[in-house]
Amino acid sequence: MNTSKLGGKSVIARIEMNTEEASFGQVTAAIFEAGGDIVAIDVIQTSSHTTIRDVTITVIDTVDIDIIAERIRTLPGVRLQHLSDRTFLLHLGGKIETKLKAPIQNRDDLSRVYTPDVARVCMAIHEEPRKAFTLTVKRNTVAVISDGSAVLGLGNIGPYAAMPVMEGKSMLFKQLADVDSFPICLDTQDTEGIIAAIKAIAPAFGGINLEDISSPRCFEIEQRLREELDIPVFHDDQHGTAVVLYAALINALKVVGKSVEDLKVVVCGIGAAGIACSKILLSAGVKNIIGVDRIGALTADQTYDNPMWQWYANHTNPDRLSGTLQEVIQGADVFIGLSAGGILKREHVQTMAERPIVFAMANPVPEILPEEAEDIVGVIATGRSDYPNQINNVLCFPGIFRGALDCRASAINEEMKLAAAEAIASAVSDKERSRHYIIPSVFNQQVVSGIRDLVIRAAIRTGVARRIPREYR
Amino acid sequence: MNTSKLGGKSVIARIEMNTEEASFGQVTAAIFEAGGDIVAIDVIQTSSHTTIRDVTITVIDTVDIDIIAERIRTLPGVRLQHLSDRTFLLHLGGKIETKLKAPIQNRDDLSRVYTPDVARVCMAIHEEPRKAFTLTVKRNTVAVISDGSAVLGLGNIGPYAAMPVMEGKSMLFKQLADVDSFPICLDTQDTEGIIAAIKAIAPAFGGINLEDISSPRCFEIEQRLREELDIPVFHDDQHGTAVVLYAALINALKVVGKSVEDLKVVVCGIGAAGIACSKILLSAGVKNIIGVDRIGALTADQTYDNPMWQWYANHTNPDRLSGTLQEVIQGADVFIGLSAGGILKREHVQTMAERPIVFAMANPVPEILPEEAEDIVGVIATGRSDYPNQINNVLCFPGIFRGALDCRASAINEEMKLAAAEAIASAVSDKERSRHYIIPSVFNQQVVSGIRDLVIRAAIRTGVARRIPREYR
Repeated sequence: MNTSKLGGKSVIARIEMNTEEASFGQVTAAIFEAGGDIVAIDVIQTSSHTTIRDVTITVIDTVDIDIIAERIRTLPGVRLQHLSDRTFLLHLGGKIETKLKAPIQNRDDLSRVYTPDVARVCMAIHEEPRKAFTLTVKRNTVAVISDGSAVLGLGNIGPYAAMPVMEGKSMLFKQLADVDSFPICLDTQDTEGIIAAIKAIAPAFGGINLEDISSPRCFEIEQRLREELDIPVFHDDQHGTAVVLYAALINALKVVGKSVEDLKVVVCGIGAAGIACSKILLSAGVKNIIGVDRIGALTADQTYDNPMWQWYANHTNPDRLSGTLQEVIQGADVFIGLSAGGILKREHVQTMAERPIVFAMANPVPEILPEEAEDIVGVIATGRSDYPNQINNVLCFPGIFRGALDCRASAINEEMKLAAAEAIASAVSDKERSRHYIIPSVFNQQVVSGIRDLVIRAAIRTGVARRIPREYR
Repeated sequence: MNTSKLGGKSVIARIEMNTEEASFGQVTAAIFEAGGDIVAIDVIQTSSHTTIRDVTITVIDTVDIDIIAERIRTLPGVRLQHLSDRTFLLHLGGKIETKLKAPIQNRDDLSRVYTPDVARVCMAIHEEPRKAFTLTVKRNTVAVISDGSAVLGLGNIGPYAAMPVMEGKSMLFKQLADVDSFPICLDTQDTEGIIAAIKAIAPAFGGINLEDISSPRCFEIEQRLREELDIPVFHDDQHGTAVVLYAALINALKVVGKSVEDLKVVVCGIGAAGIACSKILLSAGVKNIIGVDRIGALTADQTYDNPMWQWYANHTNPDRLSGTLQEVIQGADVFIGLSAGGILKREHVQTMAERPIVFAMANPVPEILPEEAEDIVGVIATGRSDYPNQINNVLCFPGIFRGALDCRASAINEEMKLAAAEAIASAVSDKERSRHYIIPSVFNQQVVSGIRDLVIRAAIRTGVARRIPREYR
């Protein structure tokens, strides 16, 4: 059992033992009895009478680590030197660092990468600004930017507390797609302040990945930056989610044998992600989408204070359905949940069309748990890694920026997003595809190169590529 | 002869030869005759009749690379495939990249560095914000920030063209002091815009290194940021220069046998660096400093539109000297030039006090060339690497930030700067010190650790250290 899937955690206990008084068997027995699972042992130091070992202990969340520690401490001849949490250890001093592409070994190197010779490179860029894309980190670097206002499910925890998420994202950019990236957390939540700061720092970057910015400010911030910058600006919470959702839908439709044009889709939770998911479905040719939020279905028959809801109501729900989720879900082919845990009931699913598709993406608790509906749906997917079919943004952002950077795209447009979704979907072959496997793993190495390829083609086709990579000429 | 010292450059010629028609001897002869110096040869490919080699050619600036290329092209059986400039090659795609401190190898790693487990780290920082210094890159990361308004001697070339300098600085931070850093070039030259942008992005950083921002905006920007941020803000063009200058002066005074209190110092060029140099000398106990700019000596008897000049006049020149450089330099012990090439004449130096110290730091041409005054001075130093005694900022910034980060200093104050200068000076031992060796090499590995030590002590002493490293407890 992989306890980390259940929200378990690891600690490392440094244990000093007097080998004449105690045996390691006693220690392991105590740990097991208190609910811990030993997954690694490293001997740190050993002498005639004492030995020091680091014991990595995994526990599920319901187990109290303090109790394990207490049990160890009460053993005669055993001293618990300290107890460290593995996740926190991984974060010490941050998760990324600077790496020189070439070392500075002597004065000759120094004079090339710095003064005086660097001046020739500066002047080359000054004379022809687009050379910034070849002669600086702009070629391969994306800023991961948040204001800390809507971090994961944690809410408005501010820029300092948001950093570990952005650093994690920078790691994923590098590891999965060799995209360099730097995490920036902004100490302002003012829309104009955020726009001004991002515009100011843009010269170093080839793209901007916005992250965890609360609605509705995220819409204006992204929209304005898209208009005012000449590099891609991509709010991952909206578009990353939308791309992966659409990828999942492409494969789910093949599994259940339905086509995009004929679908009735209910989207529950009309925030940033819900709107982005609906937009990509409209672009993909879905005609009948009904948005539902706390107040029920959004319909053009009503007026809304929230301008995004008004836009939504005017562009979806062609039959002007009104009513609760329970009412409008009747006969729907697809349910897309971006709302709250547990709000979709088995009896609602039973009123959907034949072989319904349920994407219950609320985190950490989905709108409906797979075990509650598995037997009555065509396909079910969630945002969680401990069920099949995880709809995970990590599948999209590394590859879509890899493609955008490689063709120096001035934007990531709708066609590029659709292309990315097609690429993700096609990483699952016809043979592999099943109701339990509509989405590739985030560790599937085909995904990034597949997205890159289709995204570059889409960028060239739609005229936003400012460089045609050799293999596409 | 190291031609790079004379501003030479390297090119790499990829040469394809038909070995039946041509010999490599003919190629090398042609290159030498055209003024090139071959410093490396790499065989790229070889077959029965052809061979392809990369030939690294160094030339001094007066030699035309096109002529070398033309000579190669005219050789029968020889084809010049391409010619690449080594400095430009080193800049392709930028000079730094992102490095993960630990790879993400499986889902367990992913869940620790990213969702869901990262949330626990986020909440720990949210509950105790100072944990950002232990759990994020803030612990070890400095932003290198410019607006591109006064880059090297190139002037206002803008943020894109400034990037190669800032990237070079990031490399030096990492290589010399293991300080992580990211280059930020701001697309605004508005004082308030710069201040707002830097304040906004500050959460990710443990320090701010300002660079190449033109005067007088640099004063207000630094001053305001020092007041409004709780991390060190250090305008290197001012304080880095001042620290290294004062380090050089400490040793020069030992060489000529004079003491700080009794000096008459003339500072020529009262811009940002000239003011900073004067301030550190005042802090160090120099009593008689006379500032000279284009309008002559600055004196409290006059009033100036430039508020920095007014401040300067009111705090220096106790004897209220007036007149030209030629007039006020009479009897001076030290000349500090931060002005323009060639403005100090041998006959001026002849009117200085006995064994005068001349620091002619204008770049690339000093106020007076060493060969013009060497025989009549006690010590002469310049900003250039091709003469002894190079006063180079690279000696200061890596170590001073290393020290500041390691004790989580809230500022880099005057005492820390003086300490850094003492540390640099003491990297030259009593035995080594001479009129030709008052400043250590930038590759001297003692320098960074020496600065770190004294800077941490100064920070603790003056109450700006927020963490006392173990070895100082």
